[in-house]
Amino acid sequence: MMVQVAVCGPGQCGEPERTLAYELGRMLAERGAAVICGGHGGVMAAVAAGARSRDGLVVGVLPGADRVGAGADLSVVIATGLGQARNSVIVHSADAVVVVGGSWGTLSELALAMRRGGVPVIQLGDGWRLVGSDGREVPGVRHARTPAEALDLTRLWE
Amino acid sequence: MMVQVAVCGPGQCGEPERTLAYELGRMLAERGAAVICGGHGGVMAAVAAGARSRDGLVVGVLPGADRVGAGADLSVVIATGLGQARNSVIVHSADAVVVVGGSWGTLSELALAMRRGGVPVIQLGDGWRLVGSDGREVPGVRHARTPAEALDLTRLWE
Amino acid sequence: MMVQVAVCGPGQCGEPERTLAYELGRMLAERGAAVICGGHGGVMAAVAAGARSRDGLVVGVLPGADRVGAGADLSVVIATGLGQARNSVIVHSADAVVVVGGSWGTLSELALAMRRGGVPVIQLGDGWRLVGSDGREVPGVRHARTPAEALDLTRLWE
Amino acid sequence: MMVQVAVCGPGQCGEPERTLAYELGRMLAERGAAVICGGHGGVMAAVAAGARSRDGLVVGVLPGADRVGAGADLSVVIATGLGQARNSVIVHSADAVVVVGGSWGTLSELALAMRRGGVPVIQLGDGWRLVGSDGREVPGVRHARTPAEALDLTRLWE
Repeated sequence: MMVQVAVCGPGQCGEPERTLAYELGRMLAERGAAVICGGHGGVMAAVAAGARSRDGLVVGVLPGADRVGAGADLSVVIATGLGQARNSVIVHSADAVVVVGGSWGTLSELALAMRRGGVPVIQLGDGWRLVGSDGREVPGVRHARTPAEALDLTRLWE
Repeated sequence: MMVQVAVCGPGQCGEPERTLAYELGRMLAERGAAVICGGHGGVMAAVAAGARSRDGLVVGVLPGADRVGAGADLSVVIATGLGQARNSVIVHSADAVVVVGGSWGTLSELALAMRRGGVPVIQLGDGWRLVGSDGREVPGVRHARTPAEALDLTRLWE
Repeated sequence: MMVQVAVCGPGQCGEPERTLAYELGRMLAERGAAVICGGHGGVMAAVAAGARSRDGLVVGVLPGADRVGAGADLSVVIATGLGQARNSVIVHSADAVVVVGGSWGTLSELALAMRRGGVPVIQLGDGWRLVGSDGREVPGVRHARTPAEALDLTRLWE
Repeated sequence: MMVQVAVCGPGQCGEPERTLAYELGRMLAERGAAVICGGHGGVMAAVAAGARSRDGLVVGVLPGADRVGAGADLSVVIATGLGQARNSVIVHSADAVVVVGGSWGTLSELALAMRRGGVPVIQLGDGWRLVGSDGREVPGVRHARTPAEALDLTRLWE
């Protein structure tokens, strides 16, 4: 079975996030991994574009009940009709979850991925950090500065 | 965007259903359509095998929260963790829904597809029929005897 | 734990269905059962009104992502945001499922309830019947002519 | 329509969280609000117990496909069969979301509630804090030290 990696991030993002996501998508396609994403703009569109630049397979898992708003670089589109409950579908479909940037929707994906357990969850680049009541960062999410480092942290190609 | 057709049917089926589903998958792949199915055995496995025999793209949308039990011929797997609520995800992702054979799960997909509206719903081969309180078949679902006829009824290639 | 019975039916219905649903709701409340329904009009509103006429507890499980359109007689409202995938939530929450009338959404609930297995599924009054490829009615769903008979068939008060 | 407040928190918690959740449940019931919770142990069980101590209405929205594991103090149980996607159902059903304690599941509920928008989201007591890439707390979630303060921040009884 194909390796599948979820890449999550805001539907609107800045240039640094866009570049990281595009590069990550490109590298995932080169390694033969399918990309699972939310199918809309921003980080989702960038990772899809990167993967398609290397003929990669990209599945967009949309919140809506039809394919309206689906990105142009998706290979195939799943229209869930579930709203943000689709975030749970995305993280359950992946061997590893990489988050780029920060937003409430993105945070819900990170949290659902950690709640699921058993798969690496990686924040690539700057993002939101979680601080526990002891003032320290809550352990669990790994941090990568580059797409190559993020792929290393997935440990899927060791 | 790619044409996407959902093919639904029981996880256990007889030889006639298997043959129809395989042939339908093969023809969908030849026409460049992606197949969306439930990702398990029976009709789902047969349509996936048919599509893969022509290098088609097949998405398995599983009820479970991981990819355990996913069929060997799927291109990519969506592990929904939604149980049978995933049937709604399948029918919302399709430009047309073709049903092969009869079972309660299959019937729920047919009913959800008709409830959604706006997409052709086709029963291929024998299956369960619905009779209203007036003793007549409830209108809406179209009937095809062959995969070619089913594809014609989708009207996706006119 | 309280007995919970799902009552499913079309959002628009005729007087016979309305009367059956209202009476069923009333009797369920008298027996101390909670009613789970889809929370909209027609059969859903009638069963809620019947239950509330006896101070019964009625939960409306809506397809929408907020409580807009929720019926006036609901005790509490669950806004799922799942669209028709909420039908699966309704049938999983019940000790028995009673269907009044016929529609595609209603049929999906009946089919999902039978697919779930382990709980009685009862058609009250006229409705859609399922005929297999052998020309006979597909076994499984039980038929009741009156609300009292439907309650008997649930076997929850034996 | 009844006011509905979601109370979210870990399935295992310490005494401080338990006390806050119980007290919050009690006060919500006294004000006539229905409590929506996840239906399991820890904070969920405590808020349910508090609400039931004042004859309040408590709905448990479970991840599982049946009512196994449902708490003893729930008025009615919705068995979603959706896994953690049920967290989205909880937050969409509420006029306000109060979080007690920290865990990945709880964080996903807080994030989904903020993603939904339009309803107050309140952290009661200590919990996880979110720090943006500028080193400051991400704005949006309000903080309360006592159940009374949490209720004030919902602004539902002004």
